[in-house]
Amino acid sequence: MSNNLDIKEASTLLYRQDNFLIIMHKNPDGDTLGSGYALCAALRKMGKRANAVCDSSISKRYAYITDPVLPMEFEPKFVVAVDTADESLLGERFKGRIVNLCIDHHGSNTGYAVNLFRDPESASCAELISQIIDLLEVETDQYIASCLYTGVTTDTGCFRYSNTTAGSLRMAARMIDVGINYAGLNRELFELKTRGRVELEQLAMSGMEYAHGGKIAVMTISQDMLKFTRVDPADIEGITSMPRNIDGVEAGVTLREMKNGGFKVSLRTVTIDASAICAIFGGGGHKRAAGFECSGIQFDIKVAIVREIEKVLA
Amino acid sequence: MSNNLDIKEASTLLYRQDNFLIIMHKNPDGDTLGSGYALCAALRKMGKRANAVCDSSISKRYAYITDPVLPMEFEPKFVVAVDTADESLLGERFKGRIVNLCIDHHGSNTGYAVNLFRDPESASCAELISQIIDLLEVETDQYIASCLYTGVTTDTGCFRYSNTTAGSLRMAARMIDVGINYAGLNRELFELKTRGRVELEQLAMSGMEYAHGGKIAVMTISQDMLKFTRVDPADIEGITSMPRNIDGVEAGVTLREMKNGGFKVSLRTVTIDASAICAIFGGGGHKRAAGFECSGIQFDIKVAIVREIEKVLA
Repeated sequence: MSNNLDIKEASTLLYRQDNFLIIMHKNPDGDTLGSGYALCAALRKMGKRANAVCDSSISKRYAYITDPVLPMEFEPKFVVAVDTADESLLGERFKGRIVNLCIDHHGSNTGYAVNLFRDPESASCAELISQIIDLLEVETDQYIASCLYTGVTTDTGCFRYSNTTAGSLRMAARMIDVGINYAGLNRELFELKTRGRVELEQLAMSGMEYAHGGKIAVMTISQDMLKFTRVDPADIEGITSMPRNIDGVEAGVTLREMKNGGFKVSLRTVTIDASAICAIFGGGGHKRAAGFECSGIQFDIKVAIVREIEKVLA
Repeated sequence: MSNNLDIKEASTLLYRQDNFLIIMHKNPDGDTLGSGYALCAALRKMGKRANAVCDSSISKRYAYITDPVLPMEFEPKFVVAVDTADESLLGERFKGRIVNLCIDHHGSNTGYAVNLFRDPESASCAELISQIIDLLEVETDQYIASCLYTGVTTDTGCFRYSNTTAGSLRMAARMIDVGINYAGLNRELFELKTRGRVELEQLAMSGMEYAHGGKIAVMTISQDMLKFTRVDPADIEGITSMPRNIDGVEAGVTLREMKNGGFKVSLRTVTIDASAICAIFGGGGHKRAAGFECSGIQFDIKVAIVREIEKVLA
């Protein structure tokens, strides 16, 4: 298990080290990207060498985060993982790599890193990174502020989800004070949908299935639907919240068929512990948003997850 | 034209008066309701008599705002309008009534009141009311905080729209500090959709028409659609933002057929002045969100509004 650090100890460790490899989790979302790149930029502003890396391709919608930070040539000496609850989420490329420090906000963090600074009360990892950057006495410039704003907004559904805190809002207000184009980011990240995405939502919603008297809603996104609507897989972030947003639904399940025939299952809940249910299937996450990957027959997977949810709802 | 007051002068005026009639605009949204009821509750906490009234039925989703404030019996002496840009929006019931003070954040306010405190930079009227309540030295309790949180979130699309400011976020953070159930409010106001609403969105989206190379999107909500999906008219708030949220759209128009056969037209824009275009048709609103009402042939109305938008986009 990890050596647990508080935020000052984690900041001091970063202050003393150099030649950082910052690893963001695979299938990266706005929070891991915003956290990793903001930390990388801050460490470079201190005169240190740092790279932010990820074992997945990154959606073009996050080009404003990735493009300004060009890779540096050096031998990494200190490995930091951000927003990554388990070492398997680092991806194949970093399998077995020793992680010197993990900065995370997942309650389900498995303690795989040598040192761990974790705050499960924080809605986003970006809020933790923002505090660390302040403790390192690095000025939050427009680039860093855009990264951190992206992190807090993507993990809170732009402040809609129940994990949002007063601290999330105040952190975002500070980023707005720095002068970032937050209105443009909001539109890009939360409002804008391609016509294909709109069509995909219609297809997926029209196939919605209900169980347990309407308290469980199950939506399936097939490879056929993705082909028909020509939606880029990177542009379907957030679609998993749709089943939970229907009146009366306590647990919303999304089965997403992957190219290899397997399924990525997402569970979004109103009151029950999503993380505990997904742990049964070898996954994890947060209390109201969790997931797992599996293979098998689509119908059997649906039955299995619905049965586990029913046990909790009963 | 109104006598323009600053916020201190407006607060002093409220401090000195008693027996308030607070009028909220017809077809009330969360901002006018949250503003009106929060001000009413604050004035009562000062030992004054006050009622909040509206010339429309109020959606049951706002029962937590309306229900705790029972009407008082007294002869009104001082009339306050909140969030109401023009006297016609007060409704038939208050036609010709002298308004002693108007508190508003609409740039298009017509100056119909004797005194006007207006701040068009504020995303919501609720933010102005919050500051006034502080100046009146009334404690923001959980009820008032719920009202004000509702106001700022409904007018900013829960902090997504471009009118959101750092001040909007900080005000909301303060309301969260008071201990309100903001997660429940967010879910009720922004996430939860009835099955009927989901069906209505699918119907309306499938009939979307595009003009000017995809830069204008026009959506129509007919009385037939409302009947078929059995959606309560009060529960379709926010649907007008859908056309603007499609990639490439600069101006999103929603035509909503009313029971009398007329139309309520809403215009949502990305960069152009929606208020100026709606003013041509006798309406008004904000720069990125405005509207008007009219009667006539549906096709002709569409052509007329599209032509005016094209002039601006050209």
